[in-house]
Amino acid sequence: MAGNSFGTLFRITTWGESHGKALGVVIDGCPPRIDLSSKDIQKELDRRKPGQGKGSSPRKERDRVEILSGVFEGKTTGTPISLFIRNVDVDSSSYEEWKEVFRPGQADFTYQAKYGIRDYRGGGRASARETVGRVAAGAIAKRILGKEKMEILAYTVELGGIGIEKKDYREIERNGLRCPDRKAAAAMEKKIAEAKAKGDTIGGIVEILVRGCPPGLGEPVFDKLEADLAKGLMSIGAVRGVEVGAGFGAARMSGSQCNDPIGPKGFEKNDAGGILGGISNGADIVLRAAVKPIPSIGLVQKTADRAMRPVSLWIKGRHDISAIPRINSVCEAMVAVVLVDHWLRQKALNPKADRKI
Amino acid sequence: MAGNSFGTLFRITTWGESHGKALGVVIDGCPPRIDLSSKDIQKELDRRKPGQGKGSSPRKERDRVEILSGVFEGKTTGTPISLFIRNVDVDSSSYEEWKEVFRPGQADFTYQAKYGIRDYRGGGRASARETVGRVAAGAIAKRILGKEKMEILAYTVELGGIGIEKKDYREIERNGLRCPDRKAAAAMEKKIAEAKAKGDTIGGIVEILVRGCPPGLGEPVFDKLEADLAKGLMSIGAVRGVEVGAGFGAARMSGSQCNDPIGPKGFEKNDAGGILGGISNGADIVLRAAVKPIPSIGLVQKTADRAMRPVSLWIKGRHDISAIPRINSVCEAMVAVVLVDHWLRQKALNPKADRKI
Amino acid sequence: MAGNSFGTLFRITTWGESHGKALGVVIDGCPPRIDLSSKDIQKELDRRKPGQGKGSSPRKERDRVEILSGVFEGKTTGTPISLFIRNVDVDSSSYEEWKEVFRPGQADFTYQAKYGIRDYRGGGRASARETVGRVAAGAIAKRILGKEKMEILAYTVELGGIGIEKKDYREIERNGLRCPDRKAAAAMEKKIAEAKAKGDTIGGIVEILVRGCPPGLGEPVFDKLEADLAKGLMSIGAVRGVEVGAGFGAARMSGSQCNDPIGPKGFEKNDAGGILGGISNGADIVLRAAVKPIPSIGLVQKTADRAMRPVSLWIKGRHDISAIPRINSVCEAMVAVVLVDHWLRQKALNPKADRKI
Amino acid sequence: MAGNSFGTLFRITTWGESHGKALGVVIDGCPPRIDLSSKDIQKELDRRKPGQGKGSSPRKERDRVEILSGVFEGKTTGTPISLFIRNVDVDSSSYEEWKEVFRPGQADFTYQAKYGIRDYRGGGRASARETVGRVAAGAIAKRILGKEKMEILAYTVELGGIGIEKKDYREIERNGLRCPDRKAAAAMEKKIAEAKAKGDTIGGIVEILVRGCPPGLGEPVFDKLEADLAKGLMSIGAVRGVEVGAGFGAARMSGSQCNDPIGPKGFEKNDAGGILGGISNGADIVLRAAVKPIPSIGLVQKTADRAMRPVSLWIKGRHDISAIPRINSVCEAMVAVVLVDHWLRQKALNPKADRKI
Repeated sequence: MAGNSFGTLFRITTWGESHGKALGVVIDGCPPRIDLSSKDIQKELDRRKPGQGKGSSPRKERDRVEILSGVFEGKTTGTPISLFIRNVDVDSSSYEEWKEVFRPGQADFTYQAKYGIRDYRGGGRASARETVGRVAAGAIAKRILGKEKMEILAYTVELGGIGIEKKDYREIERNGLRCPDRKAAAAMEKKIAEAKAKGDTIGGIVEILVRGCPPGLGEPVFDKLEADLAKGLMSIGAVRGVEVGAGFGAARMSGSQCNDPIGPKGFEKNDAGGILGGISNGADIVLRAAVKPIPSIGLVQKTADRAMRPVSLWIKGRHDISAIPRINSVCEAMVAVVLVDHWLRQKALNPKADRKI
Repeated sequence: MAGNSFGTLFRITTWGESHGKALGVVIDGCPPRIDLSSKDIQKELDRRKPGQGKGSSPRKERDRVEILSGVFEGKTTGTPISLFIRNVDVDSSSYEEWKEVFRPGQADFTYQAKYGIRDYRGGGRASARETVGRVAAGAIAKRILGKEKMEILAYTVELGGIGIEKKDYREIERNGLRCPDRKAAAAMEKKIAEAKAKGDTIGGIVEILVRGCPPGLGEPVFDKLEADLAKGLMSIGAVRGVEVGAGFGAARMSGSQCNDPIGPKGFEKNDAGGILGGISNGADIVLRAAVKPIPSIGLVQKTADRAMRPVSLWIKGRHDISAIPRINSVCEAMVAVVLVDHWLRQKALNPKADRKI
Repeated sequence: MAGNSFGTLFRITTWGESHGKALGVVIDGCPPRIDLSSKDIQKELDRRKPGQGKGSSPRKERDRVEILSGVFEGKTTGTPISLFIRNVDVDSSSYEEWKEVFRPGQADFTYQAKYGIRDYRGGGRASARETVGRVAAGAIAKRILGKEKMEILAYTVELGGIGIEKKDYREIERNGLRCPDRKAAAAMEKKIAEAKAKGDTIGGIVEILVRGCPPGLGEPVFDKLEADLAKGLMSIGAVRGVEVGAGFGAARMSGSQCNDPIGPKGFEKNDAGGILGGISNGADIVLRAAVKPIPSIGLVQKTADRAMRPVSLWIKGRHDISAIPRINSVCEAMVAVVLVDHWLRQKALNPKADRKI
Repeated sequence: MAGNSFGTLFRITTWGESHGKALGVVIDGCPPRIDLSSKDIQKELDRRKPGQGKGSSPRKERDRVEILSGVFEGKTTGTPISLFIRNVDVDSSSYEEWKEVFRPGQADFTYQAKYGIRDYRGGGRASARETVGRVAAGAIAKRILGKEKMEILAYTVELGGIGIEKKDYREIERNGLRCPDRKAAAAMEKKIAEAKAKGDTIGGIVEILVRGCPPGLGEPVFDKLEADLAKGLMSIGAVRGVEVGAGFGAARMSGSQCNDPIGPKGFEKNDAGGILGGISNGADIVLRAAVKPIPSIGLVQKTADRAMRPVSLWIKGRHDISAIPRINSVCEAMVAVVLVDHWLRQKALNPKADRKI
């Protein structure tokens, strides 16, 4: 209950600070006898590496994951899997200067307010670097889902105010922004370059698509599938909004527009985003997460220090221009963890259900 | 873990079906020695009564709450509080006709798929009627928050595509739609009348404002305050999207626009919506929930029965035109429950923290 | 997490005070499509009725259970089951006299110390009457286990210092003390009569036997099967010790005596009590619970009031002489709840396991 | 919920196998601003080192703990603390020979039955070596309790059938068996030598004493203090029975003997073991755990392999003769973790309570 664990039957616990000795995650409840090597996890970590897309920072991160437990002779054993990533080449000296200052848009003030102490180096626990453990755990969740023919895909549908006009899923892996619209991707890259030139940053929207999810996942009334998905996504630092299916658009629809008719072959459209009454309905699950611009900007900012004295803050150094597309893999990871958890919960219930759609 | 409980230290468990014998909620973890009578709870239940606003159904509901435990001589004792609402005048005969049919936009299909059985009367457990337990528990949560000078207010900021142009909080209790803009309220009522004439329904957006929340509430990294709030709101059947502060709007901002500068008296604007890094920052907490149109419409719909044979469905009877404004009190209740839970969690941690903002 | 719920996937939440309006339990996570009527539950409640055995109180309790939710057309639906028992003929006047006094061996002092308030009528929440909800939930758990060919039997192996010399399971239902040794049962009844004559009470030991449990139940390392069973039994007010298999006797054995040899047909003896390494091994599960004498005695006792002034306490009225045999059905209930929970958890894990023993 | 976490607000998650790369624990919910260095933890780990008492194995373990997160500039930050112990000099070759054989009294069979796979090297996850993470976490829990003037002491009250006749707490640290009776300790050492000569092992009883616990800890009705303590102790592999206060002895008492009278200065005796109604009463908490003999013996044993063919098993090598006294520090750790958890839970509730005793 202490905030750093997520999930019930498939439960991940992350630990580690941006500039601490190491980061990691313990996965408890992974089913036994699943093939797993560190390569499977490393592949996902490499996807979130910087330098993928021009909006990303040129810093070099060398995250090498080590499996410390829970795997024997290449297979999971059902015991907890501990994944470990040593921090290397950590230089915290640049943070000394501002250690008494609350950076706007960051968690500096609130961590100080909550705990009365904070590791100021690189954002400490509040750093986006914390998500390395989520992505590592997500890699295992995705393998489990893969065995069940479930697939998760996160892609960029808006960046710096540029939206997509079409969805060509093959295009996603072809451009650095994971954007399914080549033309939009080019315009987004231009927005990134503009922001960079100004020392500013930009936000955007990530869509997450789940294909192959069977009907029946989700535990009403509080652990509805979309409720746990919303929590999972909203627990990512930069995410400020979450919607499922038509989402905020549904607020502008009439009932006759919004209801998905059921034909002999199933749902004839998917404004529900694959979830009805908190339970998956067999259609694709569609979610969107609003990602705020990175708060670390290269411009002078007005702020205060711990004594609430005014400070004019200008942080040197290079930073990412957008959390997108690196955050996309974190979104995939959180969705994967939620789905495995609910898939296991449904297995426990195990009814002979009507699943004809 | 079985889906019908919410919260950790302040934990509510709801039970009951739309047309069953009764509905209720057990509240575990309520602090002792708080003044509480059934009147305090009844008042909140009455707020969600139908006939408040022209979008609501003319059915008569007489929900009388009874406190069965946990209160002694007018004060809570720290033991579980069981609240009980007997269903009266329940007529389920109209549901017999469609008991083998999956109503579009409803949970009929998914409950059948998940459980292999369902109480088809009035939506059973998936009915909005389930929220009566939430509102009852929320009434207690609000009393606890009230003692701590925290206040929660939910109001309608959009309905049937009509948005508000100003926020006059005094106006909220003056119109049946809980809309803080009198002119917009009138336009919304017109939209309701139009939808009603067509046999259709409409959706909208509810904003929830929390005033007086101290800094320090929220448990990173997974139980971030906005993550638990998102889960709480998204667990309400009709909610399809949730955002905090600037929300989806933040996706279109630059970092220099989105960051809230800190001045000597605190945050100088509030695009963060009162939460930074998953922890309350002392500013107002601002949330919005997208509410889909009610799926029960008075128009003929294309659907299927359990054998997936095509069915042309037309449901007689009068229904609500919008979940708004009745859902507003449910939103308030869920936000109240989350806040009490996190307030208790922070009390356990209890640091001598810097709370100067 | 607030203390009044037990279990993870199969989760019970009890509520109610001895002299409040009602008592009850909510069962969340009950698998769907199980035949269930209030009669099935009433039968178990009747077993714990007073007047079964001469050690029990002659008070008349008429506990009528009502199923308020979660059952439709005679079958469970997978939604929460709310069970409700109205308190009738409750006379609290006799408790007024001692409301400021801490009765020795009771929870009066500690409830006051913890909550700063207490419902003094009949022990309030700390009364053995609270277990009515456990027994009701246990009745459902037993039905689920019955479908899986698991059977639970609690019986008296010691009372007032009289131990059994043989185990004839048919004898259990034949005497009022649920004792499998007819001769010992007679001696126990004599002890009860002696204690009654003195105004005193006596304790004893209950053994719980589970037959038909498959191998594989239990979740190391903390949710070992015996750990959850120990918690379940130790959470019953009168229980002061719990052991599995050889239990405290194992402390006096050598390894060569204690280890159960494995032959071609399985374990050749059962000092492990059916559990190895926290996981059921397919043999009978054997547990024992030490039950203290009932603290309400008919003798004058030295104690104090809230101001810590000395009080000479003599409580009028008739009381049970021993919690045995009424507590036996509570022990069965708690063991049943733990087993259903772990059976569901193992179903979620669902390995193709080697279960040859 | 997946079995490898323990606690609610103060929550530990252990991971690691006997012959894997490393073992460790993540502590979530540790209050901030507590002085902590790896030395504080190392000291506790060294206490469970072998070679402390003649019953222990002569193998050399060099457990070096590393703090990987959650501590900044010598103080806890409120974020999760990851502790890490690398396994060194691990030789698993001796286990190859018996990898298809189920060792009697061990978890070999049940892990195979549950998971369909097992790490057979040194018992894998079921090894007593898993407790290194518990002791490390317990070291932190003890520091927290120390600040609150609570102290935990585990000592040996019985070994190989030899019980103590007096309790001289100063004696505990003076002999290798942590026995408070010097004469009994000598007799116990003789029993160990006898067992060793025969290639056999012995069991015993550990008593755990908590001094300085305030009244009010424990959350009825299921998370009673003794219930969580029983679960914590029973989750230790070798423990087969747990009792509080008079324990099984209470089963032989009359109510007038068992009830602790309350005088003007508090409880006049302590058969309750410091807990009434599931809540600490301010007196010393007294628990006892029955420890079975170590199942790895130097004698030939009858058993079976995975095909259930008869096997005559004789395991070479040196082993501990008794889990006592090494297990004592594990008992202390589990009790410490439970107490910190309940102390935090009570802080959340925080009543102005009557705590005069």
